[in-house]
Amino acid sequence: MALELASTNKVFNGELRKYKFKSAALGGLHASFNIFLPPQAASSTVPLLVYLAGLTCTEDNGAQKGGFFESAAANGIALLFPDTSPRGAGIDGEDADWDFGTGAGFYLNATNPKFATHYNMLTHVTLELPQVLEAAGIPICHLGGHGALTLYLASRTNQYRSVSAFSPICNPVNCPWGQKAFNGYLQGGIEEAKEQYDATELIRKRVDPVHILIDYGTGDNFYKQGQLLPENFLQAAHNAGHDEKQVQVRRQEGYDHSYYFISTFAADHIEFHAKFL
Amino acid sequence: MALELASTNKVFNGELRKYKFKSAALGGLHASFNIFLPPQAASSTVPLLVYLAGLTCTEDNGAQKGGFFESAAANGIALLFPDTSPRGAGIDGEDADWDFGTGAGFYLNATNPKFATHYNMLTHVTLELPQVLEAAGIPICHLGGHGALTLYLASRTNQYRSVSAFSPICNPVNCPWGQKAFNGYLQGGIEEAKEQYDATELIRKRVDPVHILIDYGTGDNFYKQGQLLPENFLQAAHNAGHDEKQVQVRRQEGYDHSYYFISTFAADHIEFHAKFL
Repeated sequence: MALELASTNKVFNGELRKYKFKSAALGGLHASFNIFLPPQAASSTVPLLVYLAGLTCTEDNGAQKGGFFESAAANGIALLFPDTSPRGAGIDGEDADWDFGTGAGFYLNATNPKFATHYNMLTHVTLELPQVLEAAGIPICHLGGHGALTLYLASRTNQYRSVSAFSPICNPVNCPWGQKAFNGYLQGGIEEAKEQYDATELIRKRVDPVHILIDYGTGDNFYKQGQLLPENFLQAAHNAGHDEKQVQVRRQEGYDHSYYFISTFAADHIEFHAKFL
Repeated sequence: MALELASTNKVFNGELRKYKFKSAALGGLHASFNIFLPPQAASSTVPLLVYLAGLTCTEDNGAQKGGFFESAAANGIALLFPDTSPRGAGIDGEDADWDFGTGAGFYLNATNPKFATHYNMLTHVTLELPQVLEAAGIPICHLGGHGALTLYLASRTNQYRSVSAFSPICNPVNCPWGQKAFNGYLQGGIEEAKEQYDATELIRKRVDPVHILIDYGTGDNFYKQGQLLPENFLQAAHNAGHDEKQVQVRRQEGYDHSYYFISTFAADHIEFHAKFL
């Protein structure tokens, strides 16, 4: 798992490094990620916030367009930007659609044998990347979670302290994107997904207090089409006893699904996590 | 010159609009640009700052990666992002290199007959776009200049009030990029270029006070290769009587030529222009 440094850029007095390595979790394919180290990392360990990008993205979108670095540098927080799927697995049909296969790994471990060798983004993000960073001596002290409601809610350890998300798919078993993904990647389909990959299903069973912030825009076409369903998540959270101090779902008037929306509220999300890291 | 609205995104409580139109200056080709309107534009006219992107860029790079919107919204400044060259002129060799032809129009009007029909970015940026915006009723009141030292210095009117640039080619007649561009686009080559397209040559002849801010990074490979030559510009400015209040050239330790560098100092540049707009 030797890391190869592909590039480095100074930004807001910190450093963005891009690494490549041969990923065991992804069946031996090469995986890339970006990591931002704030200036404080030069002299002490710093907390790490993981940014999990959405459909079609790579490890670069959030780094290039997200606008997170100024606030992360001010708060002394490192940011990890993984890719969103394996690349070049060579599976038949992998590149046929933009919402399934390459660029759409859904942060799950596939159980359908066709995908199970390579499509293990859950293990890649939650186990392999932390190990690789630690082995490389990158000075992080623990992990926060960002953008991946299900990783946060399904975690049985205290690996993640808080989670936030922009325009997430909140109830994938009830929307077209999620149904397509789960029926493709999982042998057990929707029923298997309910156990660990659907945020709305997971919050129903969550007993411990949570720290969740979600922003979505009313101008978001995917919201309008019923792909996101944030109302379902909020309702389930309240029914399970998680009040608005634990779960904030903010409706932002007129904003859409783009990185322009994300960059507008990027500092808000960093400040939210800074309270818990 | 009817404008076609290609997309619109809300960002930092303002609006980014992308337009296309058939450009007379570019020989009838379709041209695209982005314009950011701050929230203040809803109720009053606002000053306009023009962002002229560098080699290989389109109208999208600065908008997506530059990090200018928060400060522009706070200061009530509109931002115009033109493209960097005509697209699809169909000229032999136009797409052979990344530093000449498509994506590398150098904001000049070509006099070489091979390019003169389409490669007129000087007219496109300084005359055509202001006309198009005015005709469309977009509520801007005057123009500032950003990133285009030569347009600012060669302007014989007071069209531009201030100029700033990130890692600019300061003395193109003395660097490989400039020599290639001028010998290709201009019938009179380097000698013709000295008259209106070289910032260092132009500042020697400038008598009126100027407002110029330049940032470059010491980690910039193009700087190290002698493509930028900011020292030549600074020396020429001082020799011509423009002191450090009029011309600031800031050397930023460790930063490179990327948008990570630009985004780090984006707010600084907006604040600089806000004093003059």
